[in-house]
Amino acid sequence: MERKNVVVLGSTGSIGRQALEVIGWFPERFRLVGLGANQNIDLLEKQVAAHGVPYAAIADLDAAKEFAQRSREKGVVCLTGPDGLKQLACLPEADLILVAVTGIAGLAPTMEAISSGKTVALANKETLVAGGSLVMSIARRRGVPVIPVDSEHSAIFQCLQTEAGVQAPGVGHPMSKSFARLILTGSGGPFRGMSGDQLRDVTPEQALRHPTWQMGAKITIDSATLMNKGLEVIEARWLFDVDYPDIDVLIHPQSIVHGLVVYRDGSVIAQMGRPDMRAPIQYALMFPDRPANRLEALDLAGAAQLTFDRPDLKTFRCLALAIEAGMAGGTMPAVLNAANEVAVMAFLGGKTTFLSIAAVVEEVMSLHDVVPGPDLEEILAADGWARQAAEHLLGIC
Amino acid sequence: MERKNVVVLGSTGSIGRQALEVIGWFPERFRLVGLGANQNIDLLEKQVAAHGVPYAAIADLDAAKEFAQRSREKGVVCLTGPDGLKQLACLPEADLILVAVTGIAGLAPTMEAISSGKTVALANKETLVAGGSLVMSIARRRGVPVIPVDSEHSAIFQCLQTEAGVQAPGVGHPMSKSFARLILTGSGGPFRGMSGDQLRDVTPEQALRHPTWQMGAKITIDSATLMNKGLEVIEARWLFDVDYPDIDVLIHPQSIVHGLVVYRDGSVIAQMGRPDMRAPIQYALMFPDRPANRLEALDLAGAAQLTFDRPDLKTFRCLALAIEAGMAGGTMPAVLNAANEVAVMAFLGGKTTFLSIAAVVEEVMSLHDVVPGPDLEEILAADGWARQAAEHLLGIC
Repeated sequence: MERKNVVVLGSTGSIGRQALEVIGWFPERFRLVGLGANQNIDLLEKQVAAHGVPYAAIADLDAAKEFAQRSREKGVVCLTGPDGLKQLACLPEADLILVAVTGIAGLAPTMEAISSGKTVALANKETLVAGGSLVMSIARRRGVPVIPVDSEHSAIFQCLQTEAGVQAPGVGHPMSKSFARLILTGSGGPFRGMSGDQLRDVTPEQALRHPTWQMGAKITIDSATLMNKGLEVIEARWLFDVDYPDIDVLIHPQSIVHGLVVYRDGSVIAQMGRPDMRAPIQYALMFPDRPANRLEALDLAGAAQLTFDRPDLKTFRCLALAIEAGMAGGTMPAVLNAANEVAVMAFLGGKTTFLSIAAVVEEVMSLHDVVPGPDLEEILAADGWARQAAEHLLGIC
Repeated sequence: MERKNVVVLGSTGSIGRQALEVIGWFPERFRLVGLGANQNIDLLEKQVAAHGVPYAAIADLDAAKEFAQRSREKGVVCLTGPDGLKQLACLPEADLILVAVTGIAGLAPTMEAISSGKTVALANKETLVAGGSLVMSIARRRGVPVIPVDSEHSAIFQCLQTEAGVQAPGVGHPMSKSFARLILTGSGGPFRGMSGDQLRDVTPEQALRHPTWQMGAKITIDSATLMNKGLEVIEARWLFDVDYPDIDVLIHPQSIVHGLVVYRDGSVIAQMGRPDMRAPIQYALMFPDRPANRLEALDLAGAAQLTFDRPDLKTFRCLALAIEAGMAGGTMPAVLNAANEVAVMAFLGGKTTFLSIAAVVEEVMSLHDVVPGPDLEEILAADGWARQAAEHLLGIC
C-alpha cells in the first residue's frame, strides 16, 4: 500500500497534536511532509524532528524568523507568514491536507488546498461556517473530497457511508438521496438544564469544565453556550448539502452517540464511540479504511444509560442565532462567527459576562447588511467588520 | 421503475400479514404473484382476492382441497402439499421470495428459491439455524442475495451497508472486511433480571407478555428463554460470515437499538427504530431503496433512556446452549432447534415447566451424534430424530 503524504496545518494545537499521534501509529501508511503552526515553535521544532518533516510553516513572522534560525542546519524548508500556510496547503508532494488551524485563518489555506486538488481533512470550523457555499462549490467543481474531522460530522459521514462507498463531501453528487434528516448530538455542556437566571453569574472557570470532552478554551466556551452546536449545524448544511429544517440537534449528555441519520423509511443509523477525537481524526485520515488502533473500546454494557433531549433554545440563544445566521446566508454566518469569537475572548478575559456573548452576537447580526454569495474577500471583510462591531459593543476597541 | 414480482410463503402468519400490508403501501413497486399458507384458507382467500394473486399454495392437504373448491371459478392456480410451497418458491415469474413460514418447513422452499436464482427475503429462522452452511454455500455459488427480515439482522445488514452498496449476504465475498464484531440486541423478554428460583413457576401467560414486540406465541416464548437470541446468533454467523466469538449479545430492554457493528477502528454503527416489524420487512423487500412510508417516526427525545447489559447466561441457559450448538456445527443446531420447538410447545400446552425447556434441549443435544456438513436430508433426519427424543424425554410420545 502506498503511503499518503500528509500536511498538518495547526500541528501544535489540540487536534494537530492528536493527529500526529494517530499518524505515529501507522508509519507504513503516512509520511508527514509539512507542518504548519501559528507561533508555538518549541513544539513545532520537536514535531518536525520527531517525524523528519521536510517543510514547516509559521504564521507569526517573529516566531518564523526565530524558527528559521534554529532549523537552518537541519535541512528543513521554512515558510513564513499567512502565505506560508497557503504554500504548505498546495505543496506538490502532498496528498492530504489536515486543516486544524483555528479561526478564520483556516479559510484561505483550505481553499488553496482544494483548488490544488488535495484531499482535505477539515477540522477548522470557520471554513464552512464562513465560507461553506464558496468552499463546497470549488470542491465539487474540482471533485475534491472534503472529509470532516469533527466527531459529529464524522459520525454522520460514517452513517451515510460504509467502507464500500467512496463518495465524500465535495465529490460529485449529494452523498445520499435517501436520508430525510440529520441529527447532531451535543453534550449540552457544563450548564445543561440551567435557567437564564442561573447563567447570569457563571465564570470562565465554570464554563471551561466540560463534562465529557477535553478541548481548547474557545471551543469549550462555545460548547457551554451551544454556539458550537450552532456552528456545526451550519457546517452540516454545507458538508451534506441538506436544508436547515432537515438538521436536528439533540442534547445527549453522555457523548456516546455522536451523530445520526434518519432515513426516509424511518430507519435511524447512528455512530457511537468513546469521546476521543483520535477516532474521527483517524477516520478522516484513513477514509475509507478502518484499521485497528490503540483506542480503548466502547463498552456499551458498562456505559451509563443513553439519554436524548431537545435543546433549550430560549436559554441557550447562541444555537438559535447560528441557525438564523445560516438561514440568512451570504456573509451572515461569518459575522455570527466573528462576533462570537470576540465575545468569547472577552468573556475568557473577564471583560464581559456569559450571557453577553449571545447578546453581542445578536446585536452585531442586527447591524449587518448581508452580502449574498460572497467571495473570499467579501467574507474576510465581513469577518473584520463584525470583529470591530463586537469590540465596539464590548467597549474594548 | 419496474415492479418486483413477489411470492410470500407464510402469508397468513404475523410476518406474512405485515408484509402484505407493506406491499399494499407501494402498488407501483410490487406485484404479488403467489401466496403460500399452511391451513388458514379463510384468510388466504381474502388475501388472494384483495391482491389479485394468480397462484396460491396450501401445505395442509385437507385445507388445500377445500381451498381449491372455493377458488375454482376465480382463476386462481392452486398448488397443494409441501411441494406446493416449493413450486411457488421457484415460480418462473417471481423475482423475490419472502420466506415467512415458521419452522423447519421453511428450509426446503428457501433452498428451492435460491437454486432457482430468486432473491430471498428471509424471515424463517430455521433455514439458517438448521441449514446455514448448506443454504449460504448455494446462495454464494448462485450469487443470490439472501436479505434478512428479522429486525436484528436487518439492523446489522443496514449498518454494514449504505444505499450505495449492492452487496448482500450470498452475493460474492464477505460483506465487509473491516468490522471486528457484531452485536445483536434483545429486550431480555418478560423475565429479564429474574433468578432461576423465580423462573421455576412462571406460566405460559406470563411468558407471553412480551414487553416491547408483538409476535407469535412460539417466538415470544423463545424471547422469554433467550433461545430466540441464540438462534439469531447462529443466523448471524451464516448471514454475515462471522465467527461465533465475534458475535455479542446485549440486553437492551427498550428495543430501540436493534443491532450494532463494531468496526476494527473502534467506531460503532447502530441501527435504531421503533419496534415494528414492518420497517425491516420493507427494507428487505425494497433493498437498497428506502422510500418514505406510513410508519410512525422514532422520537429519541421522547424515548426513555437507552440501556445495555450483558445477558445472564447462567439463568437463561438457552442462549448458551444455542451458541454451543452453533460452535459444534453440523446437525447440532438443527437438533437444538427441533428439541426447543417441542419443549416450547409442551410448555405452551401446560405439559412442562419453563425451566424444562433448556433442560430438554441440553439433554437432547447430549444424546446427539453430530453429522458434519449435512445435506438437506441429513438435516431433516436430525430434526426428526431430535423431535422424537424431546417428546420421549417429555413423556408425550
